[in-house]
Amino acid sequence: MKVVVDAMGSDQSPVAQVEGVLQALDQFPSLQVILAGPADLLETQLKSRGRDVGDRLSILNSAEVILPEEEPVRAIRQRKGSSMVQGLRRLARGEAQAVVSAGNTGALLAGGLFIAGRIRGVRRPALATVLPTLDQNGTLFLDLGASVDSRADDLVQHALMGAVYAREILGRRIPRVGLLNVGTEDQKGNLLVRDAHVLLKELDRVDMEFVGNLEARDIFSGEHDVIVSEGFVGNVALKVIEGTAKTLMEMLRSEIGTSWRYKLGGLVLRPAVRGVYSRMDYTEYGGAPLLGLREIVIKCHGSSNGRAFFNGIRQALFMAERRVPERIASYLERGAACE
Amino acid sequence: MKVVVDAMGSDQSPVAQVEGVLQALDQFPSLQVILAGPADLLETQLKSRGRDVGDRLSILNSAEVILPEEEPVRAIRQRKGSSMVQGLRRLARGEAQAVVSAGNTGALLAGGLFIAGRIRGVRRPALATVLPTLDQNGTLFLDLGASVDSRADDLVQHALMGAVYAREILGRRIPRVGLLNVGTEDQKGNLLVRDAHVLLKELDRVDMEFVGNLEARDIFSGEHDVIVSEGFVGNVALKVIEGTAKTLMEMLRSEIGTSWRYKLGGLVLRPAVRGVYSRMDYTEYGGAPLLGLREIVIKCHGSSNGRAFFNGIRQALFMAERRVPERIASYLERGAACE
Repeated sequence: MKVVVDAMGSDQSPVAQVEGVLQALDQFPSLQVILAGPADLLETQLKSRGRDVGDRLSILNSAEVILPEEEPVRAIRQRKGSSMVQGLRRLARGEAQAVVSAGNTGALLAGGLFIAGRIRGVRRPALATVLPTLDQNGTLFLDLGASVDSRADDLVQHALMGAVYAREILGRRIPRVGLLNVGTEDQKGNLLVRDAHVLLKELDRVDMEFVGNLEARDIFSGEHDVIVSEGFVGNVALKVIEGTAKTLMEMLRSEIGTSWRYKLGGLVLRPAVRGVYSRMDYTEYGGAPLLGLREIVIKCHGSSNGRAFFNGIRQALFMAERRVPERIASYLERGAACE
Repeated sequence: MKVVVDAMGSDQSPVAQVEGVLQALDQFPSLQVILAGPADLLETQLKSRGRDVGDRLSILNSAEVILPEEEPVRAIRQRKGSSMVQGLRRLARGEAQAVVSAGNTGALLAGGLFIAGRIRGVRRPALATVLPTLDQNGTLFLDLGASVDSRADDLVQHALMGAVYAREILGRRIPRVGLLNVGTEDQKGNLLVRDAHVLLKELDRVDMEFVGNLEARDIFSGEHDVIVSEGFVGNVALKVIEGTAKTLMEMLRSEIGTSWRYKLGGLVLRPAVRGVYSRMDYTEYGGAPLLGLREIVIKCHGSSNGRAFFNGIRQALFMAERRVPERIASYLERGAACE
């Protein structure tokens, strides 16, 4: 199994990528990695670690870098020598089975569409992530903003794609799919969500179950294997989780600073608090798969550390092993034929 | 100043309402309260507390109750004898200056529109709340879902209404208004938000400042006095905050239970953790004002306790003193004349 890791474009590039890659090569004997980035930089990094990974690691020299703030479509068109574009081309040519990147999200999406290509019949790909739940099983949440102004039938496709992921990667035999809404009653919501609700109810699949609307306060309840949201809303929801967790932790830190008793208690509890915070932390959940493409593309967070890249690579391996894109394609086709 | 408090329709009815009302009467000597609900129930409650509040508290007997799950418009039309409808009628007749209710949100919105009436020119009222911020000043966030499928010009009205509230109640001389979006760049977002951004930029007001888009992870940063969001998105965002805070606290509790050292640390830190959690807690921030109506209507959370009702009543008093609805009306008219 060969995975391209884009070594550039993130906060801790390329140190975090190199760390994650070396960990993954240690853990998975069948893994081969193509590390894309400026060869001299990467070679220095690898040499300084003095690790021998034999012929399982190769470098794809690419001098250009796509910056986080660049306009995505233009960046993909103009920076053909970038690690991202070079990596995606390897993927498209079948020389690798997945790309893992923490670079510009819009560019990765645009590049995924133009270079790797969409699954036939997919209008809008979706970016998904696994949210932590109280029962520790996790819920697949999509779309995180790969699309905005989606249509109701896009949301239905996202539900189907999410169900395949939940089945193949999260091991849910008959995934329970919920629709994010402002209330649980069937007729609640805006025009888009009301339409999507009707279409999802009409779906007749034995291997997934549409369980109706859910409110945003229940996304961590563990009652759903897949939660479908329109992309703009999903993007806001994900960032609210991040902002709330960070704000609570900062408030707690400043509260603890106000008395020596608290400081003592804080010292004792620190590992517990860190443990909880890390459960809300993206680095533990690998990256966000871009579902609806013909190939496996995984977006890691821009501030990913080595651990996050390790998890992203592992996720890419599992998706390749379970042939997720192919299964999505056939699951969607089956839908088209049935309906 | 006379405030109607709807004693029914919430989780802790009417105990929490009675508690909040008695606290508020103690604190504010000029306050008069009309408590709406079944007279026998309320009289028993008041008698059991043995408190003499003189003639500043009267009971508006109303036998019917609107339940949380009832269809809003039908409930308002059919349950004319309910505490909510009776209370709103007093308001509309000028016999009170505000209604505070923790009942069915949709019904309160519908009743506010039909009975109290909209400010001239307002197409869609907005439900607002004050979010906690790290600098402790708070940010007014709206719309929480009073409207869905809003138009760009609705969002502009919401921005103007929010600016009036921030100026009059939060004391921000020139409120800084931000637009909730998926990115900070001007051209980011869906069709609605991109249009609203253009309109907000064109606004030329000396007493408010449109500071552009913000991402959802920055809603607690304290950099904005007002954050405008489309109602569906705002509703999801608010409930994600609630869900994230609750989930983190539950995870922490279960983590603390795993060792006696943690239990000890947890005991010491308990007040600090509670303090932080309460800063994310709606009960401390009173209720959600419904902006855009001719009268003052405040929605309290369905699980409000006495403290939350006290804060909601206090907020109603401040809004009445500062004549917020009248100021919103004139601020919006000024807009219409200028543009």
